[in-house]
Amino acid sequence: MIERTKIGELKEKVGQEVTLAGWVDVRRDHGKLIFIDLRDVSGKVQMVVLPNHEEAQRVAQEIRPEWVIKVKGLVNKRPEKMIKADQLNGDLEMEVLDIEVLSQAKEMPFDPDTELNLDTYLDHLPLTLRGDRPKAIFKVQANIIRAFREFFTKEEFTEIQAPKLIGDDAEGGANSFDIEYFGHTAHLAQSPQFYKQIMVGIFEKVFTTGNVYRAEKHSTSRHLNEYTSIDAEMGFITDHTDVMKTENRLLKYIMDELKKCCQKEFDFMGTEIPTVLENIPALKLREAQEIIKKETGEDYTQEPDLEPQNERWLCEYAKKEYGSDFIFITHFPMSKRPMYTYEDENDQGYAKGFDLLFRGVEITTGGQRVHDYDQLVAAIKAKGLDPEKFTYYLQAFKYGMPPHGGFGMGLERLTAKLLGLENVKEATLFPRDLNRIDTLLSK
Amino acid sequence: MIERTKIGELKEKVGQEVTLAGWVDVRRDHGKLIFIDLRDVSGKVQMVVLPNHEEAQRVAQEIRPEWVIKVKGLVNKRPEKMIKADQLNGDLEMEVLDIEVLSQAKEMPFDPDTELNLDTYLDHLPLTLRGDRPKAIFKVQANIIRAFREFFTKEEFTEIQAPKLIGDDAEGGANSFDIEYFGHTAHLAQSPQFYKQIMVGIFEKVFTTGNVYRAEKHSTSRHLNEYTSIDAEMGFITDHTDVMKTENRLLKYIMDELKKCCQKEFDFMGTEIPTVLENIPALKLREAQEIIKKETGEDYTQEPDLEPQNERWLCEYAKKEYGSDFIFITHFPMSKRPMYTYEDENDQGYAKGFDLLFRGVEITTGGQRVHDYDQLVAAIKAKGLDPEKFTYYLQAFKYGMPPHGGFGMGLERLTAKLLGLENVKEATLFPRDLNRIDTLLSK
Repeated sequence: MIERTKIGELKEKVGQEVTLAGWVDVRRDHGKLIFIDLRDVSGKVQMVVLPNHEEAQRVAQEIRPEWVIKVKGLVNKRPEKMIKADQLNGDLEMEVLDIEVLSQAKEMPFDPDTELNLDTYLDHLPLTLRGDRPKAIFKVQANIIRAFREFFTKEEFTEIQAPKLIGDDAEGGANSFDIEYFGHTAHLAQSPQFYKQIMVGIFEKVFTTGNVYRAEKHSTSRHLNEYTSIDAEMGFITDHTDVMKTENRLLKYIMDELKKCCQKEFDFMGTEIPTVLENIPALKLREAQEIIKKETGEDYTQEPDLEPQNERWLCEYAKKEYGSDFIFITHFPMSKRPMYTYEDENDQGYAKGFDLLFRGVEITTGGQRVHDYDQLVAAIKAKGLDPEKFTYYLQAFKYGMPPHGGFGMGLERLTAKLLGLENVKEATLFPRDLNRIDTLLSK
Repeated sequence: MIERTKIGELKEKVGQEVTLAGWVDVRRDHGKLIFIDLRDVSGKVQMVVLPNHEEAQRVAQEIRPEWVIKVKGLVNKRPEKMIKADQLNGDLEMEVLDIEVLSQAKEMPFDPDTELNLDTYLDHLPLTLRGDRPKAIFKVQANIIRAFREFFTKEEFTEIQAPKLIGDDAEGGANSFDIEYFGHTAHLAQSPQFYKQIMVGIFEKVFTTGNVYRAEKHSTSRHLNEYTSIDAEMGFITDHTDVMKTENRLLKYIMDELKKCCQKEFDFMGTEIPTVLENIPALKLREAQEIIKKETGEDYTQEPDLEPQNERWLCEYAKKEYGSDFIFITHFPMSKRPMYTYEDENDQGYAKGFDLLFRGVEITTGGQRVHDYDQLVAAIKAKGLDPEKFTYYLQAFKYGMPPHGGFGMGLERLTAKLLGLENVKEATLFPRDLNRIDTLLSK
């Protein structure tokens, strides 16, 4: 490796000669003095090239933003009146002794201070992702998924690799992408649902992370055609509340980890890491609708699902009433849930399942699943589907499955809501949508 | 959760009444005595239903293999002569007091002791994966990928989520699957190569895990059409040897972790966890070919690549000569490597790249990449490709990239080689091939 000091560790090097390497963030030519802000993954530092270092001056006159350079220099304290106390290395300045160019860059496509619209931002991700904001977002995202896996590993879940290339006999449907597969048509998975259920038959408790696909023609701020699904499924549950309790503990673990690793990023983004109560409040859909009616006069009590404005209202209600950033809504009508949904024996027509709402939107769907083979076959038929098409999946149930349930989340949506991003595309490294795969699709 | 004792923890419960829950592994009806081997994720135990427990006897007569049951009983020590010391719980027997059926199973499609051919095994994965052998394989696999991520997290690499749905302008080519994408043709990624390189521009050191796709019409014991690629890429390297050193440390970390968590599984599979030397031996391709010629008389010195028999021979040589289970082969001809390959200035025509061989096959390809924009454009042209098609990817280089390199591995192939499996499909939960996506594709 190129031997260097990380810019984030310069504080300990005052008075010493060090070597840095990174990108030129900004270069300001003040005639005799040239100032360069150097950036590496750990932070930025201001460097100054004095006129007496002639060779360094010569190189410094040439270099431009995004050039990659290796710099030898002296770490000096700044004069008192030049200190910027709120910045990393705001009390330091590096006096440049020698510059080596590792890589040149062409001219920038836009001024670094330009406010970019989303399309221009997305057109130039290999460059624009280098900004402080995306760096903060994707550092947080990496730590969410790390914490997710750590939690389940500690709780003795086994990680599985679910296939994404699926046949006609799995969850196909209108919203799946078609693939030309050796003369057949295959599909891209919309979730790892069937596979995580099957694997409960082997490992009892499993989790999986991976890309999933929705061929939806939406172009909204909350939909993606390819996203990262983080999923868990567990056997030998009593009912859906066991799944909710597990998710509750998971969220607590994730937020605790984020507090440890990413407080700086949340501060930078101007948002707070939410508090997760020991018991996230839970309401049945019908109860929630009654409360909305009573409090607002608006009657949604006949609706089979929550409207977006209901989700927003209930989140505010949970905050005010329980001091919670999260709220579970349970018992949606069976008609609105998939065929594997478990019906509540004591509340017929309603599911032992839940949505989790956070800051105005649903971030998880979960619940108990049907585990009895005959019951599942009947449920498939009741949805107007053909059990023949589900033969492979059905084997798991034909050969004995324990009561089980689970949940799934979109990593990008969770990241976006946690950081207060307006568009989920900002929480997706290389978002795919109706018009774009990296570049705009030609007409 | 259903309150129960895990079967693996019964040893501590001798003389106590406990509740277990799991699958009926085997049921033997000896007239007055009914024996049931119960299985959960932690192990198996023999249970006996005595004639004096009438209700339990009635239920025990009904139950069949793979039924899921909850059992209350007494943990007794076995009489001395009945002890099977080499088995988990071989010194125990559970006297059944009460059985509750959680889930029934239909009749098994084959006798549990039948030796299955691969097709029958794959046709019934939701059932056949419940065997001891697949359970061992996929527990090891889960821990390989856990250790992989842990290692890179400790080394301050950032995890990224790479898209798999790609446009024409990325690594398309003959071996990619086509997707119908809103009236356009998109492709499934063959690797996260371009994205991990781009992300070096943001996080300097990155890793990623996820499915990748090869539309190869092979039907061999080492190819898959969908597999899990585990990848890393790092900036500010001196040359490819920094990448090799990192992989060397990674392998050491993985094997150390496997020793901690999975020694039992390796014993069961009858294979050994390999030792990773502090410095895995490395030979240039031409050196390796010279040695082969000198030692065997076979002349491959003009070949641009290693033949399968060379890979096997070199692994035996590494074992004999260096006591190493691994060997790096470096400096393949540039003509055999992709356009982003970095040429060795001191060994023109040869790449600063490597393959890693293990137990007779290549398990990794890696190396230094071209980081200079103009050089990369020239390299793309030299391969007869059109730089226009790589515009998005090329932005990373246009706007300044440090010297960097990385490597990728197939998780399934690594699992298979570690455990001595003949076919990589055995190390893939739900393998996709020319003829199969879960079920056989109809003609």
